[in-house]
Amino acid sequence: MLESTVAAIRPLDEAAMAAARELQGRLTKPAGSLGALEPLSVRLAGLAGACPPPLPDQAAVAIFAGDHGVHAQGVTPWPQEVTAQMIGNFLAGGAVVNAFARQAGASVTVVDVGVATPLSVTPPDPAARAADPAGPSALTVDVVATPADPDGPRLVAANVRAGTRDMTVTAALTRDEARAAVETGIRVADELVDGGAGILLTGDMGIGNTTPAAALVAVFAGVDAAAATGRGTGVDDETYARKVAVVRAALARHTPDPSDPLGVLAAVGGLEHAALAGLILGAAARRVPVLLDGVIAVSAALAAAAFAPDAVGAMVAGHRSAEPGATAALRHLGLDPLIDLGLRLGEGTGALLALPVVTGAVRVLHEVATFDAAGVAEK
Amino acid sequence: MLESTVAAIRPLDEAAMAAARELQGRLTKPAGSLGALEPLSVRLAGLAGACPPPLPDQAAVAIFAGDHGVHAQGVTPWPQEVTAQMIGNFLAGGAVVNAFARQAGASVTVVDVGVATPLSVTPPDPAARAADPAGPSALTVDVVATPADPDGPRLVAANVRAGTRDMTVTAALTRDEARAAVETGIRVADELVDGGAGILLTGDMGIGNTTPAAALVAVFAGVDAAAATGRGTGVDDETYARKVAVVRAALARHTPDPSDPLGVLAAVGGLEHAALAGLILGAAARRVPVLLDGVIAVSAALAAAAFAPDAVGAMVAGHRSAEPGATAALRHLGLDPLIDLGLRLGEGTGALLALPVVTGAVRVLHEVATFDAAGVAEK
Repeated sequence: MLESTVAAIRPLDEAAMAAARELQGRLTKPAGSLGALEPLSVRLAGLAGACPPPLPDQAAVAIFAGDHGVHAQGVTPWPQEVTAQMIGNFLAGGAVVNAFARQAGASVTVVDVGVATPLSVTPPDPAARAADPAGPSALTVDVVATPADPDGPRLVAANVRAGTRDMTVTAALTRDEARAAVETGIRVADELVDGGAGILLTGDMGIGNTTPAAALVAVFAGVDAAAATGRGTGVDDETYARKVAVVRAALARHTPDPSDPLGVLAAVGGLEHAALAGLILGAAARRVPVLLDGVIAVSAALAAAAFAPDAVGAMVAGHRSAEPGATAALRHLGLDPLIDLGLRLGEGTGALLALPVVTGAVRVLHEVATFDAAGVAEK
Repeated sequence: MLESTVAAIRPLDEAAMAAARELQGRLTKPAGSLGALEPLSVRLAGLAGACPPPLPDQAAVAIFAGDHGVHAQGVTPWPQEVTAQMIGNFLAGGAVVNAFARQAGASVTVVDVGVATPLSVTPPDPAARAADPAGPSALTVDVVATPADPDGPRLVAANVRAGTRDMTVTAALTRDEARAAVETGIRVADELVDGGAGILLTGDMGIGNTTPAAALVAVFAGVDAAAATGRGTGVDDETYARKVAVVRAALARHTPDPSDPLGVLAAVGGLEHAALAGLILGAAARRVPVLLDGVIAVSAALAAAAFAPDAVGAMVAGHRSAEPGATAALRHLGLDPLIDLGLRLGEGTGALLALPVVTGAVRVLHEVATFDAAGVAEK
């Protein structure tokens, strides 16, 4: 499934991009006056292969959650149980991602791809699973989804293993585990697009997950461990120094090969990072834009680009995380972020803040009058 | 009215800000992880005098339109008639500001405060005007507002004069004309807030209006004409050089005194700039936030701050316009913009793109669970 998805990813459609550029020049505004929104609208036309591209008014946030063996190295002051506790918060609608998703009208899907703490969830319906053992619905368990609110957050149970292994001791994952996580992401993308989503937003939750993100950025973007590593939730100087040393030690132990993305994800990645790479590949294969959140997302985007360079055409950088690794990754991908407000929360919050900018860029092509039609003189 | 409005503007409420800071620290996210949104939420609590401050879910864009005598100096390649033609486009819903306002659920009010070309509009209802000759409704003429859409754009007829005089030859306005425009802006703010608006967004339309904006920035921010002047809609090198020379000549002729904002607006301002200063003062007096658009808005904001320094507490910088004068003005006001995407369209488009960020910042204080309530452990 990974290979067929990668093979389905194609370059942007030049004819649709040319049509969008031409249309932008006829709309009632000075040429270029919408700044970065104009090339964004052109790229989304190229992705859709149509001008105007569809208005991405049905948006879906997918929050992949996992835990990390490297937590044992003291890279964060937060207890590992917080990953599972925050899943409860997401499903109850109490996190920042929920507030922003309600505002943006986006659905929230939480995917347990590798949480270490057992979740107290309703098991999947065996009848539904039996009816379609291979289909994406086999993944889905409706758990805390408030009965009163069918549009509320839902949980997908797709735990590959209860957290990664400690990458300073051994590979975080086997290649098969990494593949299973990537393919989970692809399946989630397919399911969300089949459900009508016109844009996917990346989210993540995993105490300690900025450490593997830094390792992924160092490998794929070719930067030093110190340049790729940030303070995550806000660690002190001593913890930060330890975190850089941990990333450096993991890279020295595994010397991952950036031309083998599955090997890199297995050696120093996380289950949520691998699944996000899959979500991005799945979106690109379906020619649906994927709005990237912070450093976890862009580290996964580097892996996706290593699998399929044309996947970058589907990526929109939602924001510039305060994490230095995010900036290094965006530079490597050639992406400029839409929002730059010093956020470092994750969950998908930065992507959600950027969603109206993306929708607005496309809406211009749908709704703005041309000089001719509006009877407005040109210069 | 100007004096009483200025007198009503007070500092932010420290107790409400302290409460907002304390609440931010208890919400389920690492402290500070929402970056610039956290101090923004604190400031809006201080403005409202309440924590949480009201959710600004009823937003109103006010587009002030005017023409400029300095157009005769060849500062722009666009014909002056485009100001009036674009008003027609706004009222028909075909401009970028309309597309963005529909997306954001914001109302659009166009105010003719100084358009030179006669507008073909329905005159105001004499009965309504007679019933309340002094009230803000006396200003209002419903014109092209599509009968089928009572929430569509409306036009306020408040023309002070048919464009300013050429500021390189004489003062652009008399002090009385400048005052009339400022007070129009105050009345529009009052009317919109009385109508339920929880946040006002600045918009503008006026061919040639970046030239007086540059002069205002040079005076109030104390920067050179060349540093305050940009390429507006995208003028060529020759026109740009002429524009800088025009700004320099106007400043040399009038030597405006920045401690006399009405005098500055009269000498080198525009009717829409003066009215926007009034809108900002009116919003500040009503303790409602005002979301600033581009260089026209921030040049007017400098005038508002010269009238009442505490008015800055009500200002939120929506975006950083590509115009260099905008950056100089924002620096002088001590405001950081929320969006920085190279826009230079005006109309209120940059403010509208930033609106979800402002709403999101406030929504966090309303909707996000605390660590205690969500049962999430702290570090």
